[in-house]
Amino acid sequence: MMKIIDGGVTAPKGFMAAGTQAAIKYENRPDMAMVYSQKPCIVAGTFTSNVVKAAPVLWDMKIVKENGTARAAVVNTGIANAGTGKEGMDICRTEAEEAAKVLGVLREEVLVGSTGVIGEQLDALKLKAGIKALASKLSDSRQAANEASVAIMTTDTVNKEAAVTFEIGGRTVTVGGMSKGSGMIHPNMCTMLGYITTDIDIDRALLQKALSEDVKDTFNMITVDGDTSTNDTLLLFANGLAGNEKITSENEDYKKFCEALHYVNETLAKKMAGDGEGATKLVEVCVRGATSKESAKILARSVAGSNLTKAAMYGNDSNFGRILCALGYSGVSFDPDRVDISYEAEGKTINIFSGGIKSDYDEEEATKLLDHKEVRIIADMHEGSAEATAWGCDLTYDYVKINADYRS
Amino acid sequence: MMKIIDGGVTAPKGFMAAGTQAAIKYENRPDMAMVYSQKPCIVAGTFTSNVVKAAPVLWDMKIVKENGTARAAVVNTGIANAGTGKEGMDICRTEAEEAAKVLGVLREEVLVGSTGVIGEQLDALKLKAGIKALASKLSDSRQAANEASVAIMTTDTVNKEAAVTFEIGGRTVTVGGMSKGSGMIHPNMCTMLGYITTDIDIDRALLQKALSEDVKDTFNMITVDGDTSTNDTLLLFANGLAGNEKITSENEDYKKFCEALHYVNETLAKKMAGDGEGATKLVEVCVRGATSKESAKILARSVAGSNLTKAAMYGNDSNFGRILCALGYSGVSFDPDRVDISYEAEGKTINIFSGGIKSDYDEEEATKLLDHKEVRIIADMHEGSAEATAWGCDLTYDYVKINADYRS
Repeated sequence: MMKIIDGGVTAPKGFMAAGTQAAIKYENRPDMAMVYSQKPCIVAGTFTSNVVKAAPVLWDMKIVKENGTARAAVVNTGIANAGTGKEGMDICRTEAEEAAKVLGVLREEVLVGSTGVIGEQLDALKLKAGIKALASKLSDSRQAANEASVAIMTTDTVNKEAAVTFEIGGRTVTVGGMSKGSGMIHPNMCTMLGYITTDIDIDRALLQKALSEDVKDTFNMITVDGDTSTNDTLLLFANGLAGNEKITSENEDYKKFCEALHYVNETLAKKMAGDGEGATKLVEVCVRGATSKESAKILARSVAGSNLTKAAMYGNDSNFGRILCALGYSGVSFDPDRVDISYEAEGKTINIFSGGIKSDYDEEEATKLLDHKEVRIIADMHEGSAEATAWGCDLTYDYVKINADYRS
Repeated sequence: MMKIIDGGVTAPKGFMAAGTQAAIKYENRPDMAMVYSQKPCIVAGTFTSNVVKAAPVLWDMKIVKENGTARAAVVNTGIANAGTGKEGMDICRTEAEEAAKVLGVLREEVLVGSTGVIGEQLDALKLKAGIKALASKLSDSRQAANEASVAIMTTDTVNKEAAVTFEIGGRTVTVGGMSKGSGMIHPNMCTMLGYITTDIDIDRALLQKALSEDVKDTFNMITVDGDTSTNDTLLLFANGLAGNEKITSENEDYKKFCEALHYVNETLAKKMAGDGEGATKLVEVCVRGATSKESAKILARSVAGSNLTKAAMYGNDSNFGRILCALGYSGVSFDPDRVDISYEAEGKTINIFSGGIKSDYDEEEATKLLDHKEVRIIADMHEGSAEATAWGCDLTYDYVKINADYRS
């Protein structure tokens, strides 16, 4: 059975991490992190679908696709290294070279990640100093993982970690992870940097498959503001130190691993949605009874992404018309007269729309129910048996505030 | 030559209008309007693409598609008559019957429109009283048009009218219009109610074609919040009283009419974008040098609809990375290194991104330039010769405020 544990990227055997202050853009706050594996890893990754890809995304994509092996990841916040032309790519190379030198690995085994303002150039000297400091602080402790997860935060208000263990043939396998992301979050990968580590021994193609499949139901189902970043990166490192019989087919062990990975991904994804810029609550949208999984996803994301629904959630306003409206413009066809819409929070459910008209419910009760940190909107289409869940947050004054003067 | 005149729906010959207070949902504010033609009209229309269509939309669609003739339109604000099931359709019929009775026309010649809260039922008695009051106030005066345009406002801060005249064979033809729309505004028609009148004599199929074509470049190119309403309706009435030789082909006269219609549509559309809920400025996004008109449109709308770009516009923050990012996730493929991005306001232009990197511009100057009521973002893709313009607005605290407690 899968066991949820307190931990992050250092939970699996052989992984070390660190966070440090490198004054990349701001003074006096952690802004660089490192993840390092004592043994060579295979690595899987998924990246932004944005046509404009940040330099570190291009760097990582090449390594994941061409080599598929890695030893370390270096991350900075403050500056995204996107819209930075050739100089931006040179910085990635310099960064990887420096990390390779101090860690005694190959340049092509170092992945780099950046998040922050687009269009500004990174300072190579600051990066180098940061990398040296990180290498000297590397540790496999719980605290080191925590410090790394704090160092990759930008407008995040909480750091995001998760870890689980499970057994394969008597051997304990661990999956741990950290991520950041608050603004620029939208279904097709977000900024959104995520680093998952595991000590499982698995075939590289299967590792990538497990990640690519699971992302569709987790990270790609969250939305904060509809803006898909240039920097979204999710990396999954596996170093094989658990000593399990190597997974080379989609057997029972593979399924166990997928389940563990799903838990870590979903946990991190929900933490990001609930920590959306300025958000006061996590809004989970469950669509049921759809004709296909794909339709269910589109419908769920449309509601989770609707500015009007999100503003209503902020005001605890049971404005189901906006939910109905968002289902309607999603692009999926359905019969409005068959849709059931309900709210759910802390185990209590209120049906608000049924049979094409407003249900007979108490407005005050609905307002009270919406006034929770986690609220679920359930739309049952009554047309099939497919379902999907999307996660978002409310739209608040603070979202505007954060983004009207983010750079200053 | 086309001449811009001060006027609204009563500018063309034979059209009358009125606005009144009917206490549909709120007391002491105009909330019902009527447009009436002294002569039978042909009518064209475009409607919301939302799967969930309000009852009045279904009513109007039937008339426009099956009959294509009309005498009057009755509009109410406060309640949208959407998500109201069979009872909602009954209300439309009652409304049209009442108007038909007091105006001495057929029930099938009366179009109805509603905007406001979704899911609540309209009160037939209030509607009937409103219709009687409107019929008794009908006038072809400038003031009557103005009062009608004020009566259809919801969260709009200004009423929206436009009118032009042009000549066909010595006869003066007039096109006038009014619209409302502030929230729930997004490319595929919005709430967004629009009523255009003209005294031109034209074939019905050509009237519909002129409207359907022009909407693609005007009303469907504005975005406030990405939420496409259940009630969007744009109607174009033509009563033929100008006495021009009837237009039956796409000749020069047809082109003149299209030009006049385009002016009225674009003017109303821009007024709606600039009056977006809580907006402090109109943001015009011009995409040039695209490989196709369709690509140019998608790119322009993606930027105009980006929450992050909109929040930056509110803060007068020259955060071009967000513009680049929005171009990038639009779904259109392009080479980021070839894109030129500039700001323009009051005839002054500042280039901010070129050759894949940030241009050498003065931040303070850019901030000053963005601090105008009308700002233009220009993206030249340098890949072809197609261009398109989209209109949006900034995202402000007030947008959230308006929508967090719209119903209360």
